[in-house]
Amino acid sequence: MDSESFKECGKTVVNYIADYMDNIRDRPVLSTVEPGYLYKLVPPQAPVKGEDWKTVLSDVEKIIMPGITHWNSPQFHAFFPTGNSYASIVGDMLCNGLGCIGFSWITSPACTELEVQVMNWFGKMLGLPKEFLNESEGPGGGVLQGSASEATFVCLLAAKDRTTKRVKSLNPNMDINEIKAKLVAYTSDQSNSSVEKAGLLGSMPMRLLKANDDGQMTGPILAKAIAEDMANGLIPCYVVATLGTTGTCAFDRLEELGPICNENNIWLHVDAAYAGAAFVLPEYRHLMAGVHYVDSFDVNLHKWLLVNFDCSAMWVKDATHMVDAFNVNRVYLKHDYQSTDPQLPDYRHWQIPLGRRFRALKMWFVLRLYGVEGLQAHIKKQVKLAKLFGKFVNDDSRFEVVTPVTMGLVCFRLKGDNEPTRDLYESLMRRGRVYMVTATVQSQLVIRFVVCSRLTEIRDVEFAWNEIREQADKITDTVTTAVTGNVDITIASTITKTGGITDVWNEEEEHVVVKSLTHG
Amino acid sequence: MDSESFKECGKTVVNYIADYMDNIRDRPVLSTVEPGYLYKLVPPQAPVKGEDWKTVLSDVEKIIMPGITHWNSPQFHAFFPTGNSYASIVGDMLCNGLGCIGFSWITSPACTELEVQVMNWFGKMLGLPKEFLNESEGPGGGVLQGSASEATFVCLLAAKDRTTKRVKSLNPNMDINEIKAKLVAYTSDQSNSSVEKAGLLGSMPMRLLKANDDGQMTGPILAKAIAEDMANGLIPCYVVATLGTTGTCAFDRLEELGPICNENNIWLHVDAAYAGAAFVLPEYRHLMAGVHYVDSFDVNLHKWLLVNFDCSAMWVKDATHMVDAFNVNRVYLKHDYQSTDPQLPDYRHWQIPLGRRFRALKMWFVLRLYGVEGLQAHIKKQVKLAKLFGKFVNDDSRFEVVTPVTMGLVCFRLKGDNEPTRDLYESLMRRGRVYMVTATVQSQLVIRFVVCSRLTEIRDVEFAWNEIREQADKITDTVTTAVTGNVDITIASTITKTGGITDVWNEEEEHVVVKSLTHG
Repeated sequence: MDSESFKECGKTVVNYIADYMDNIRDRPVLSTVEPGYLYKLVPPQAPVKGEDWKTVLSDVEKIIMPGITHWNSPQFHAFFPTGNSYASIVGDMLCNGLGCIGFSWITSPACTELEVQVMNWFGKMLGLPKEFLNESEGPGGGVLQGSASEATFVCLLAAKDRTTKRVKSLNPNMDINEIKAKLVAYTSDQSNSSVEKAGLLGSMPMRLLKANDDGQMTGPILAKAIAEDMANGLIPCYVVATLGTTGTCAFDRLEELGPICNENNIWLHVDAAYAGAAFVLPEYRHLMAGVHYVDSFDVNLHKWLLVNFDCSAMWVKDATHMVDAFNVNRVYLKHDYQSTDPQLPDYRHWQIPLGRRFRALKMWFVLRLYGVEGLQAHIKKQVKLAKLFGKFVNDDSRFEVVTPVTMGLVCFRLKGDNEPTRDLYESLMRRGRVYMVTATVQSQLVIRFVVCSRLTEIRDVEFAWNEIREQADKITDTVTTAVTGNVDITIASTITKTGGITDVWNEEEEHVVVKSLTHG
Repeated sequence: MDSESFKECGKTVVNYIADYMDNIRDRPVLSTVEPGYLYKLVPPQAPVKGEDWKTVLSDVEKIIMPGITHWNSPQFHAFFPTGNSYASIVGDMLCNGLGCIGFSWITSPACTELEVQVMNWFGKMLGLPKEFLNESEGPGGGVLQGSASEATFVCLLAAKDRTTKRVKSLNPNMDINEIKAKLVAYTSDQSNSSVEKAGLLGSMPMRLLKANDDGQMTGPILAKAIAEDMANGLIPCYVVATLGTTGTCAFDRLEELGPICNENNIWLHVDAAYAGAAFVLPEYRHLMAGVHYVDSFDVNLHKWLLVNFDCSAMWVKDATHMVDAFNVNRVYLKHDYQSTDPQLPDYRHWQIPLGRRFRALKMWFVLRLYGVEGLQAHIKKQVKLAKLFGKFVNDDSRFEVVTPVTMGLVCFRLKGDNEPTRDLYESLMRRGRVYMVTATVQSQLVIRFVVCSRLTEIRDVEFAWNEIREQADKITDTVTTAVTGNVDITIASTITKTGGITDVWNEEEEHVVVKSLTHG
């Protein structure tokens, strides 16, 4: 493809993406293909001769689209959001156009320095302690990882290095392998599966402590586990606290966990992959009280902050442990090692792979095109839409909201035993008009409804509720009435000059007000 | 940014990328900024209000571009190539537009199935044994990783799981931790630093065995190390062989290493990150003789095959060890586990993170728009350009080519001790008109010249040589004459219908022929 063809093809693809977004409600959110559908459509060998881009592009619609589950559809309410915005897409186009690999400063100074700067920006936007920022005097700093999984694992390795050295210095006769075999990590049974995986990857037992009835890991729960292990000669090394669990968006009690970790020299990592985004709003920061005790903190911009996957922001209070654990060039490439200057980190020693994309570019585009207020408005709006959905559920006496509506998540079920909820869920999945996933809360089956797409509007929440309500009618043998357009939520439809935000919720409107809802 | 603004902005960015590529020779390949340059240009806080995309785009030229080292410049001859093509860029635009996260089949069937199919395509293009393909009956298959670093690490963990289980089954009384502490891995001292890092990450000592004088790890070298370790009660577990080392593009002797690994139940991984791409040409496949002994094989499409970072193709002969090592859902999500069907792998168990981009899309675009012949032509052309450069060096009596010109790499130096070569290199770096890196071969300092950019033409090789020659004139106090346009290499300038390839080398023209070169 030469430059002229690229201009034509690239612009066609730009139009295709815009049309896809504009008309995404016309596509069923869940793919309905049978397993193996694509193997019948794609030949078993690569073509010998190059093909025309128009042929390939027409195959995207014919072959790929039927097998897509539309994560950006306003009918997608499963898992947590995946970030997506036009701002991020154009930033990433430039990243690919430049195609530079910024594994050290000289391989593209802008890659390192822009990442340092946007991580400073974002850390301030969340109100993180300044020891985490690259611009601080100390050894702290931020870096973009590919995922929260990698962040959890990277910090586990740093913790292992730190603890092993500390124990060795106190017990010079102890064998390093013997020390490592005694290390143990802790998280709650509500943490993401990637936390357990980090333990597997890093050869450190990860104890899944039973959370309290509110889904939280508390100080007493952790203290008890640590005491047990220490009594058995083990060495507590690493704790992963979750702010916003995957199941119910519960917040571990950092203020209780922090002092325990600090007193016992345990590395405390915070996985705030989804809910951490909400800290751009000062009114939510009470949920991270105790963050000053923390050694490392991670939040995904690629979840709730409109940056396309992958873009996970991780900060550490002291990067030297990570660099020590990862730096394979200590001896023979000493001259190339610059990370003693926190302003010019050698980011290859802050991550698993050597190569790295210029991810900071898409983040920079999103932060600048939306601005702090634009991202705050996005979070506010999605929280309000979740509250609206919670209101619909609460106003229907057949249903219950199981845990408090938190952030964009509503956990709900049909009252009684699990069977009707399971029937309802299966019926919804068969129809494929809305996509949600289930979870288990205190042995109760719940359906998780998450406001995910940035395109989600009141009418989409109504659509989802009406779909759920109708299927519940069949299961419970009742007749209820649709909710449509009778919701009074003041929306200031402000188009900013940048086009960054089209709908900004009225600042005065703090709570969702539902005028009238009729249920059978 | 709304859809209309995106259309305008997206098309502007498409033009910007095309103009950047068309005029890339006008930009100095190496950034000349001072450390910290960007902190003076970017404010310390994110903007409160969203900004206009035109402002941000103009800042790309003002703020970002001065700090870019242009990896796709025809004057970039450092490291190894980073893949970049218009085909890949449009494929990745669609990936971002769809923004789906294919961590299991249902989350977008097309993500899993297209990846399976293009990995089958590519495995066949390289002539890999069919046990590696997903379409085979057995438990083998291919997957896209982010980098060769991750592939090496993932296979180390699979090897650890396999060996631990085997040893435990033979010695039921041995403690699992005791077994793990005895495991040891091997690679050559010429392997990429990421191999040593994999050992650090996975807590397995990685012995860096001294390669032979040709930079190869041989059977006897490995056998000796294994025997030593077994005599000391250690358990050999994992070997990483390199096909195309970073320093000199040497090939470890797979045919000798394979039987040793198979006999001793050692997992044999092949890191063919760069040179593996050349196996699209059957005439190079003798360099992977012995591949049937291998357990896993990795080659980066994002290096020499025109796919943008990140896109690393990894195959395993038996995926069950990897899935066993990584699957954290064995108990409580059993119903969700589909990887027993090699046609429908649950790819989240084949990698470190949970989330995954739809990388197969850009790979599909590149394979289809170029076709097998297009990619073969690309490799052939770059090898010929490297031979041309080698010819320039050889014809200048002041210089020597240190190791045979292999693939796109030429290792050269000024004859004699290291100082003149160091002076030459430093002088070239100060000028910043071509970018190369150095290596040490048998204690001799060499400069590595790699044909990297897909845009590199004869005139660029001449440009680089003339730059080197002129600086050498100053150091050696001689006067030589420029090479310009007097090279006779037949090039069939064929524009294919797709525009996939603009210059295809004449198939009959097997060797570079230099008509006349004059040197002082």
